[in-house]
Amino acid sequence: MMIKKIKRLTLVEQVAIQIEDLIEAGQWEVGSKLPAEPELMEKFDVSRNTLREAIRALVHAGLLETRQGIGTTVKSLSTLGIALERKVQKSDLMETLEVRLALEKEAAQLAAERRSNEDLKLIDECLEKCKEAAKGKEPQHFIDMDIAFHKSIVKATHNEMFIELYDHITDSLQHSVHEIMRVRGPLTDEYEVHTDLYQAIRLKDAQLAMESVKTYMEKAKDSLYTMMEG
Amino acid sequence: MMIKKIKRLTLVEQVAIQIEDLIEAGQWEVGSKLPAEPELMEKFDVSRNTLREAIRALVHAGLLETRQGIGTTVKSLSTLGIALERKVQKSDLMETLEVRLALEKEAAQLAAERRSNEDLKLIDECLEKCKEAAKGKEPQHFIDMDIAFHKSIVKATHNEMFIELYDHITDSLQHSVHEIMRVRGPLTDEYEVHTDLYQAIRLKDAQLAMESVKTYMEKAKDSLYTMMEG
Repeated sequence: MMIKKIKRLTLVEQVAIQIEDLIEAGQWEVGSKLPAEPELMEKFDVSRNTLREAIRALVHAGLLETRQGIGTTVKSLSTLGIALERKVQKSDLMETLEVRLALEKEAAQLAAERRSNEDLKLIDECLEKCKEAAKGKEPQHFIDMDIAFHKSIVKATHNEMFIELYDHITDSLQHSVHEIMRVRGPLTDEYEVHTDLYQAIRLKDAQLAMESVKTYMEKAKDSLYTMMEG
Repeated sequence: MMIKKIKRLTLVEQVAIQIEDLIEAGQWEVGSKLPAEPELMEKFDVSRNTLREAIRALVHAGLLETRQGIGTTVKSLSTLGIALERKVQKSDLMETLEVRLALEKEAAQLAAERRSNEDLKLIDECLEKCKEAAKGKEPQHFIDMDIAFHKSIVKATHNEMFIELYDHITDSLQHSVHEIMRVRGPLTDEYEVHTDLYQAIRLKDAQLAMESVKTYMEKAKDSLYTMMEG
């Protein structure tokens, strides 16, 4: 249906895009080594110079990493993830949290409408782990479980683009979230509203799900402002 | 407050990041030529080879373009914009529209709470242009005015990250939107709900603003499904 513009690409660009697509499709894991030069040259049917230039471009894009004695390894699976991380680092924390909230509110509603029984099981498991972690003394563990809970809800939207955007923004926020938790300590009472959210999704009540998100985000915003002023 | 990881960067990467930052900061406009090599070599205090490699990396990233006889020109102002455009092109249209809706719903509420009188004036002007365009026979003009209307609302959130994400996703959707309009023709009755949205923002009623977005997006979704089936 869609008419795409034809773009003229150089050979280097074509090779770089092909490698990028393979990485994004999960051909190689993060940390794994790319195949040797001769193999890649044959695969793409290009010269050593063309291949090397394409690889350099992907090193700059942040997808690959070249280290002496080790070779070229995969550093990240997504250029979108890298671009979002750079943007989040340059942005105001409250602005980023607002964007995350927008996604969370809609995700809660879509999850309530679409969640399968497996989705619900995963959300429930994540919630239980959060409750456990809130009792412990490991802030980083609590944060990880909290993030896993929210990601499990976004996953239940079954919208790949939504999931990718949310996951990247959330991962990029991790450092800041950790810092806030370290100063403030985990919000154990937050878990009542998280339980409300789980119940709303279980009952497939989109309106209630959205309101639960609103409630806990208002709380989080308030304590963030208090912390920043204090 | 935030603790940043120290990253060891090569000279090429450092130069590439500096040029990228200058482009994103608006140092050069899209289409404008970069300064000559000797000037840039002096500015960054690097060799010709280092500079050229940094430029090649930015050409791959889609920020710069090198054309014979013309030199190196600025092609895009944002790596995030490029990454989002690539993502949208690979994604399902309905999924992208859902993400856009999530942003529009939250933006309408934030705009209702925060809009200045100047913001309101701009939104009103865009709405009037939309109404005019809906009467005309130029679908592309109508689409442009419709997009400008929605962007003017997101602008009233005064959240730079929100604005950038929304603008990039919307721009990336343009081709598809054009195609839909071409097949279906503009929805003139859609403008009643757009007027409702404007009124809600004027009255600073966040709840009403969000409901107006919901109403017109449901309509748009329905007609999109009808079109795809028909």
